[in-house]
Amino acid sequence: MRWVLPEDRIPTAWFNVTPHLPAPLQPPLHPVTREPIGPDDLAPLFPMALIGQEVTTDPWVDIPGEVLDVLRSWRPTPLVRAERLERALGTPARIYYKDESVSPAGSHKPNTAVPQAFYNRGEGTARLATETGAGQWGSALAYSCALFGLECKVYMVRASFEQKPYRRVMIETWGASVEPSPVDDPASPGSLGAAISDAVRDVVTHERSHYALGSVLNHVLLHQTVIGLEAKEQLQLAGERLPDIIIGCCGGGSNLGGISLPFVPDAGVELLAVEPTACPTLTKAPFDYDFGDTAGLTPLLAMYTLGHDFMPSSIHAGGLRYHGAAPIISNLVQHGRMRAVAYPQLKVFDAAVQFARTQGTIPAPETAHAIRAVIDEALAAKESGEEKVILFSYSGHGLLDLGAYDDYLHGRMTDA
Amino acid sequence: MRWVLPEDRIPTAWFNVTPHLPAPLQPPLHPVTREPIGPDDLAPLFPMALIGQEVTTDPWVDIPGEVLDVLRSWRPTPLVRAERLERALGTPARIYYKDESVSPAGSHKPNTAVPQAFYNRGEGTARLATETGAGQWGSALAYSCALFGLECKVYMVRASFEQKPYRRVMIETWGASVEPSPVDDPASPGSLGAAISDAVRDVVTHERSHYALGSVLNHVLLHQTVIGLEAKEQLQLAGERLPDIIIGCCGGGSNLGGISLPFVPDAGVELLAVEPTACPTLTKAPFDYDFGDTAGLTPLLAMYTLGHDFMPSSIHAGGLRYHGAAPIISNLVQHGRMRAVAYPQLKVFDAAVQFARTQGTIPAPETAHAIRAVIDEALAAKESGEEKVILFSYSGHGLLDLGAYDDYLHGRMTDA
Repeated sequence: MRWVLPEDRIPTAWFNVTPHLPAPLQPPLHPVTREPIGPDDLAPLFPMALIGQEVTTDPWVDIPGEVLDVLRSWRPTPLVRAERLERALGTPARIYYKDESVSPAGSHKPNTAVPQAFYNRGEGTARLATETGAGQWGSALAYSCALFGLECKVYMVRASFEQKPYRRVMIETWGASVEPSPVDDPASPGSLGAAISDAVRDVVTHERSHYALGSVLNHVLLHQTVIGLEAKEQLQLAGERLPDIIIGCCGGGSNLGGISLPFVPDAGVELLAVEPTACPTLTKAPFDYDFGDTAGLTPLLAMYTLGHDFMPSSIHAGGLRYHGAAPIISNLVQHGRMRAVAYPQLKVFDAAVQFARTQGTIPAPETAHAIRAVIDEALAAKESGEEKVILFSYSGHGLLDLGAYDDYLHGRMTDA
Repeated sequence: MRWVLPEDRIPTAWFNVTPHLPAPLQPPLHPVTREPIGPDDLAPLFPMALIGQEVTTDPWVDIPGEVLDVLRSWRPTPLVRAERLERALGTPARIYYKDESVSPAGSHKPNTAVPQAFYNRGEGTARLATETGAGQWGSALAYSCALFGLECKVYMVRASFEQKPYRRVMIETWGASVEPSPVDDPASPGSLGAAISDAVRDVVTHERSHYALGSVLNHVLLHQTVIGLEAKEQLQLAGERLPDIIIGCCGGGSNLGGISLPFVPDAGVELLAVEPTACPTLTKAPFDYDFGDTAGLTPLLAMYTLGHDFMPSSIHAGGLRYHGAAPIISNLVQHGRMRAVAYPQLKVFDAAVQFARTQGTIPAPETAHAIRAVIDEALAAKESGEEKVILFSYSGHGLLDLGAYDDYLHGRMTDA
């Protein structure tokens, strides 16, 4: 079963979780002075509208009409009940997923790429530079820049640039240019942190250029809350009150934040972050101030971090290879409102293929992390006989990650 | 703007165009005796339910509930107005497309793969074999076999097998096996006709095996009429009476038939088939009886045909590399109810990239043939000042064809 909301039921305001957090967020610090930063410190990187959204405590933020016009090309996205998977597992759990793979770029990323391109164009930006891991974010920004008439430059983590050539072509088809990162070390597989450094260096040396980040920051998670807001309404249509547990994969934290933040005020709704054991930020790392990028060019953020020079192995879930986690997600985990679990790659792909052969669609390797946890929760519910309601974010499709499936199906994949 | 019908407005019967054709269809002939064939001649290849649908003159054929349950995973598909493309062209034409790319396999092909798997399972088939060109059909059948618990073997045209490795992986992810065709000539780029021969040879030498065809035959086009039936209802929602012209790309003719056949009885609705100049079946070939496959194993069909041994060049639109055209489509063209046009590859990709950069989604090379004709019709309407209503079939996405875009964007594509 699918629940599709009509076009006019798209949310018209983003949900701001800040007033609902268990404790106040700690301010970002200047990379040199280590004093709390102000709007002027961020102005070389972002338009003022986004800087304002980064610190706002307003409970709701209106979505501009021109942004809604673009989001309506694929939103509201379907809420789907995974009945074939439920039957294959023999679980009494009811499993629902929010299908964010239906966007033009194939993931949740355009939810924030579109407003970021919109606000930048509104303040006279001519060109955006960014990093990308698996390419989901880079393709989303390239798509958005094509619609708003902005130039776009994408620094792509070298491991993904080589593993996923089709993502590079997708970005180029929308008119953006792509360069493997780190630009100064062709032998390195790269990391999201290093690619951020490349993109930040780019914008400070180009006219009318701004930087765009696809995750981690408050305004990015804010834009993604359309996912959870729609899901809440669709669950009612499906006859459910609230989910018992919400599950999302976590790299920087944007899709996880998108589906779960609107449920933070709802006591009794359990929130679960899923990450790779190869990059165990929330499950193994300390909570500390750290840079968002490898070179130490960005402000210091209060978050769980493996260290800004951490270099994860080249797992296929390139979008989860980030040393930190969004301050909002870190805050929720630190204060016990969210928990986290980590899985190795092979168990993740077992789940991905089981999903493809029952539900019929092929998930992105990142999304497959969430699916692994969903299956384990559903099997635990079978054990306990509990009619649990599970909601997860189907954050993206795996059609440009089929090289990873090829490795898995032919025994060439390892857990490393 | 998008018009999405609720799940319960999915068509519950297929539309049979046979009673509405300008002249009766000529019967298929036995490959050896050249006498009209009967049901028993087809029984080694197809289940009786499909053989019945091949010859029925009933105006409507009920869709089984179990088939509807699966089709509802993605149907009804959206009808989209291509407003950004209209603006970029400055045309007074209103352009609508039916988005068949939202299916799990990414094209219209599952519309018939699902009922074919269903009817085969119902009659005790354990295994299906088929051919595939670009891989759209092979992946659709692999998906459907996974859902109905059938084994699946796909003979993939070698040119596509090499150009589009991700389609092979997709098919394998759903549990089917793939072999490049022709199996006995590794130096040949292959053709759909040769791959049909391989698949037919396979099923006659395997137990409880049947053959499944993704286009050409009457029952295949019948299953695809859900496209046009939904579009008719959605156009009313959009405030249009009927389209002035309907455009679809044509290989064997199934997506073109799907969108256009329900409009055959509507006088004044122009129907346009678009094919590649590299395989100009409807625009250059004679109408004659010919085999559906290279080796001459299938019945003889009355159709436009370039000859069953015709070997088209390795263009990227692998799904359009077929020597014949569906008897129903051929009948409509022969009697003037449909016209046809052919385009070379580079002009087709010009249109594809213009579409991607305005509408935001990347079409399959096959679909891009329709888009080329749509743009030319819209520009002609601009010239004449006519507020023409154009409807086309967005038959599939190009996410597994990005190698073709890579060639185009980097000047490596030719018209050959």
